[in-house]
Amino acid sequence: MLPFLFSVLALAPQDSAPLSEATEECLACHEVAHPGIAADWARSRHARTTPAQALALDPLERRMSADSVPEEMRDVAVGCFECHGLRPDAHPDNVEHFGYRINVVVTPEDCRTCHPVEVEQYANSKKANALPILEENALFSQLVETVTGVHGFAEDGSLVDLGSSDETKNTTCYACHGSRVEVVGHETRNLFGQEVEFPILSNWPNQGVGRINPDGSKGSCSACHARHGFSIEVARKPYTCAQCHLAPDVPAWEVYHESKHGNLFLSEQNDYDWDAVPWKVGVDFKAPTCATCHNALLTTPDGAVIAERTHDFGERLWVRIFGLPYTHPQPENGRTWELRNADGQPLPTSFSGEVATEGLIDAAEQDRREKQMKAICNQCHSSSWSDGHFARLDHAIEQTDRMVLTSTLLMQKAWERGLADPANPFDEPLERTWLAQWLFYANSIRYAAAMGGPDYASFKNGWYELSLGVKKLERALEDAGDD
Amino acid sequence: MLPFLFSVLALAPQDSAPLSEATEECLACHEVAHPGIAADWARSRHARTTPAQALALDPLERRMSADSVPEEMRDVAVGCFECHGLRPDAHPDNVEHFGYRINVVVTPEDCRTCHPVEVEQYANSKKANALPILEENALFSQLVETVTGVHGFAEDGSLVDLGSSDETKNTTCYACHGSRVEVVGHETRNLFGQEVEFPILSNWPNQGVGRINPDGSKGSCSACHARHGFSIEVARKPYTCAQCHLAPDVPAWEVYHESKHGNLFLSEQNDYDWDAVPWKVGVDFKAPTCATCHNALLTTPDGAVIAERTHDFGERLWVRIFGLPYTHPQPENGRTWELRNADGQPLPTSFSGEVATEGLIDAAEQDRREKQMKAICNQCHSSSWSDGHFARLDHAIEQTDRMVLTSTLLMQKAWERGLADPANPFDEPLERTWLAQWLFYANSIRYAAAMGGPDYASFKNGWYELSLGVKKLERALEDAGDD
Amino acid sequence: MLPFLFSVLALAPQDSAPLSEATEECLACHEVAHPGIAADWARSRHARTTPAQALALDPLERRMSADSVPEEMRDVAVGCFECHGLRPDAHPDNVEHFGYRINVVVTPEDCRTCHPVEVEQYANSKKANALPILEENALFSQLVETVTGVHGFAEDGSLVDLGSSDETKNTTCYACHGSRVEVVGHETRNLFGQEVEFPILSNWPNQGVGRINPDGSKGSCSACHARHGFSIEVARKPYTCAQCHLAPDVPAWEVYHESKHGNLFLSEQNDYDWDAVPWKVGVDFKAPTCATCHNALLTTPDGAVIAERTHDFGERLWVRIFGLPYTHPQPENGRTWELRNADGQPLPTSFSGEVATEGLIDAAEQDRREKQMKAICNQCHSSSWSDGHFARLDHAIEQTDRMVLTSTLLMQKAWERGLADPANPFDEPLERTWLAQWLFYANSIRYAAAMGGPDYASFKNGWYELSLGVKKLERALEDAGDD
Repeated sequence: MLPFLFSVLALAPQDSAPLSEATEECLACHEVAHPGIAADWARSRHARTTPAQALALDPLERRMSADSVPEEMRDVAVGCFECHGLRPDAHPDNVEHFGYRINVVVTPEDCRTCHPVEVEQYANSKKANALPILEENALFSQLVETVTGVHGFAEDGSLVDLGSSDETKNTTCYACHGSRVEVVGHETRNLFGQEVEFPILSNWPNQGVGRINPDGSKGSCSACHARHGFSIEVARKPYTCAQCHLAPDVPAWEVYHESKHGNLFLSEQNDYDWDAVPWKVGVDFKAPTCATCHNALLTTPDGAVIAERTHDFGERLWVRIFGLPYTHPQPENGRTWELRNADGQPLPTSFSGEVATEGLIDAAEQDRREKQMKAICNQCHSSSWSDGHFARLDHAIEQTDRMVLTSTLLMQKAWERGLADPANPFDEPLERTWLAQWLFYANSIRYAAAMGGPDYASFKNGWYELSLGVKKLERALEDAGDD
Repeated sequence: MLPFLFSVLALAPQDSAPLSEATEECLACHEVAHPGIAADWARSRHARTTPAQALALDPLERRMSADSVPEEMRDVAVGCFECHGLRPDAHPDNVEHFGYRINVVVTPEDCRTCHPVEVEQYANSKKANALPILEENALFSQLVETVTGVHGFAEDGSLVDLGSSDETKNTTCYACHGSRVEVVGHETRNLFGQEVEFPILSNWPNQGVGRINPDGSKGSCSACHARHGFSIEVARKPYTCAQCHLAPDVPAWEVYHESKHGNLFLSEQNDYDWDAVPWKVGVDFKAPTCATCHNALLTTPDGAVIAERTHDFGERLWVRIFGLPYTHPQPENGRTWELRNADGQPLPTSFSGEVATEGLIDAAEQDRREKQMKAICNQCHSSSWSDGHFARLDHAIEQTDRMVLTSTLLMQKAWERGLADPANPFDEPLERTWLAQWLFYANSIRYAAAMGGPDYASFKNGWYELSLGVKKLERALEDAGDD
Repeated sequence: MLPFLFSVLALAPQDSAPLSEATEECLACHEVAHPGIAADWARSRHARTTPAQALALDPLERRMSADSVPEEMRDVAVGCFECHGLRPDAHPDNVEHFGYRINVVVTPEDCRTCHPVEVEQYANSKKANALPILEENALFSQLVETVTGVHGFAEDGSLVDLGSSDETKNTTCYACHGSRVEVVGHETRNLFGQEVEFPILSNWPNQGVGRINPDGSKGSCSACHARHGFSIEVARKPYTCAQCHLAPDVPAWEVYHESKHGNLFLSEQNDYDWDAVPWKVGVDFKAPTCATCHNALLTTPDGAVIAERTHDFGERLWVRIFGLPYTHPQPENGRTWELRNADGQPLPTSFSGEVATEGLIDAAEQDRREKQMKAICNQCHSSSWSDGHFARLDHAIEQTDRMVLTSTLLMQKAWERGLADPANPFDEPLERTWLAQWLFYANSIRYAAAMGGPDYASFKNGWYELSLGVKKLERALEDAGDD
């Protein structure tokens, strides 16, 4: 009955866990219909461990944060039905499927069954809120619409912006930020002679970090824990973060690649133990990856906790170097559209550089976080090294913020003189020169300073471009007769 | 006599195949003269298998497509002489060499001895025809000359284009597209006290996909199957395709790298079986590489064929997202210089967007190919997932084609108003603004949509640049007094 | 007493070497304070070999170039104290530390104890002199200041360059070139209830190749041999060189990545023996990395030396393709600020293209070096292949130098006509157009030609940009009324 499944399971050297009856039935068809999924899952920890086994581990070694699971799940592998069969009443995407009630979209609220702490942390993060961060913020929303709008001609021959489509946003910004997935109808397909019903989902597929799911929950765990292996190895490797955290606006991957840490990772990654929980400094890995500093549970070789695991990825950070348009203390939670700067705009800083007075962490909390991060650095670096490193970051922040202020003052002059129309501050070439100053170049320099990738502070979207941008803005004013 | 050779062969854990007498004699010198080549070959399948052994395999497992080979080749390894000694009369580059007649340039027509199906497929592809695609098309040829021409000053002090050299083309466009290699003379070198004759080859070395060889054949198998290992592993890894398929015009590698597929490949590639034939979904590999979707023989875990092997790399594609200047159905064969658009230009589409009526595949064939591709996707994705994905690609195609049309209409206005001279549509800065719209930005967005790399649809040569380019063209017209 | 240390050492499968008493005492605290460093070192060759064992090896297999070491170091591992305790009187950064005299910054002069030949070679290189190369050269220094200067407004509202800070230079140019590390004071920290003194170091941390150390020596071995593993594997992999040799000015990494050599390295690197000394062509590795061609000791499979090891990384090169602003013979030593062109500027070539008459290697030396490099190529390539390849590089050099001359003549015209102010030739947008011509595009094309990465000769900072730059300069002159 399941000849292929057993061949798939045979690939996993470890003992496999018993399957629930429901999951066996799922696999009977799906190992044939979608063998790639079945094989991926068959190699996963979910296929090889029961929750009961997972719960028996030492707390530091546990990957589950629940203290218990529903009785029927305790002693079977975490298979198809264990995830796709949860909370059917909460799922508008639930359908009757060969005798079972199945959800198409597994959401964080389902994962919460075994991983409640991670889900709770994540829910508070900017990642979980990444879609409303764009949609609910009038300025960011205008930026999205402006960049992705299709242009044509009006009847009078003038160029007009005909607006941006959902699909274009899904291919661009929302691919990372997440889309709004809703059940917008149903269709039937004939399978084995039966008419089988499926939900029609809007803005699907999507695996963005802030996806809004049919059940109303926010996030897609598979953004980082790719289906259906849900591998901690993959999530710990920087290639996962590099799906989204990319130049020119967020050049984390590029900076990491050229850093000493990146060099060591790329050169020696095969010597790491990517699967160990907890992750022991010096024993399991050498140079850090993104996950090391930003979210993993780290211990010393003899098991003392250096940093607790977190799935709120901004939680270890004190300053937000992603300028909007200036750097600022990290927001208290992921609902950044609720922030207001001194001018009432939905930004953490005003155009003149003033930091919002509410909604951002205070100096004491900043200090606590910086010390915590340095504790990680100091596993391999002396405190004079890490203090010097972060003093340099502070300086890069100060200097780039000043350059953004200079650029913004020049742009405001240009708006005042009619060289561009501030009604939409993002659409004209001169405005893009200004936009690139803070969104691309100042950010690049700060990421480069934070993670040690000097080229991104210099010639690659760094000071070279930042100083040129100031001169271009100045020249535009001069050409218009300014002096 | 052959102490080093045996040490080299000792590196290969598998049994080695017997060598022909001729190849033994080649190696006696060449293992000393070029030990890197000898060692590379010694590790290869060619060194470890005889054609007779290869022919005995199950058809799905065969890497040879010939049903038989010349008797003298059957039971020896595929060594130096077996490849460099074929068809001497057809090779203008053949020389007498220590008692043997040796060809310098092994060509697809030689490889045909064992791999006729692959050679035949390849011969029909755009790859095989990549050199005349540039040379025989007046517009593309003008683009090549314009981009690579050296500039100096005329006697009157005016700037002039002094033309492009063969060598510059060989370093740039023809390095990928292929050069024309001909015997243009002979020279002798003194080896071991003997005067030994060698052919002098034009435009050599070259390993471009469309190289025209001294024997008149087209293509270089070593473009992807690098000498002298001819490894299927190397050809299946995306680094091979990434030699040429690169941003800004063809950002396949960059998009793949940031895609989920690329993340999984980069993270888990060491777990794959890169050498298995056929390539079994879920068993031998997880996330696809370029080869998976575009050319490899794929089967399910239990051996059902999902896709047949092809060496015509466009054969599985329905729409050509590489716009010229707009997207269009894939051409029927690789001789794209024979296409004519509605205005008689050698392009698949006219500047106003009309698709050529002949030489492109029809809607039925497009439909067949799209279904075939989805069959590959569906090994790991539900049909609602893959349908949604390709609907989004269709939308990206439609929107980017509209943006290219808008840009082209603006450029035509600029030409009409004398802001640029259309005699050469590629040389002036404003024309480059237009060129980048379709050759770089529209293409990037489509590759990003096709393969799931959102940054290349957004900030990296994506909509950010595409919308900016439209505004720059508009601004140039405004500055010239247009309204 | 040392339970963790032993667990760390247990990670190394090889036998460990005996530790000196001093190093045991270091580790007693530091394995707890900085377990990452301790573990990294514990896996290193330094931890597993004594100098006496190293000296007993066959000369070709030795990694030490000293013939002897101080008696007390002979029979112990190269541990903490063996490096940090050397030459205390020569180290202004030396401090009393729990009964030992310890240096914070280990320098090449310390490494010289075991590796004198490497240190001597390095001292002569451009790398060792990378900081004065920027600081002592008025033009380069002006470029650094211009690019990294922060801009604000003078009292009259005009834009002014407020200068560049040391910290910004340390984050940008000096991160690779090296900073000047000096003891500028002392501080005490309370450790285990004791007040312990530490030096305060200026411009710290830094790992640039030309770092100037407190003891006056030049260079940081850890730039390439990262602390505290000092792994030859890491140094041989191209990721190390890719920390600094990056686009747009020095696109060695990017070009290598897209080259055939890069493809093979990326695809097959796990099959290499990265640790073998000497490095045997065909046996230990297949495609070369940076280290293969530029510095490693290479032999044939049977041990004949192809190229001697060098740590003067320009020593195998004949032409310097990094144009300043034109290509030129390699300088005789790393003190390039001493060069003078025909116009008395501190450049190897004049703005009109004349090559300096002193301080550069002569034609005979160039010829010797080119032949030496070809001897490496010919391990895997025929001489017609390598001759053709380098003839193409010569052509790329000639053509790009011509394009730089054309661009420079246009820029000089622009300066003469007052379109820009030559007092600072690097700050205005038009000057940046000229600067990019030689610093970015001409260089990219040459690197692409030298190492076989055609995209960087074409669309990626290649001829596409170079020909466009000429047209932009021409257009600027035309717009100003030139004809």
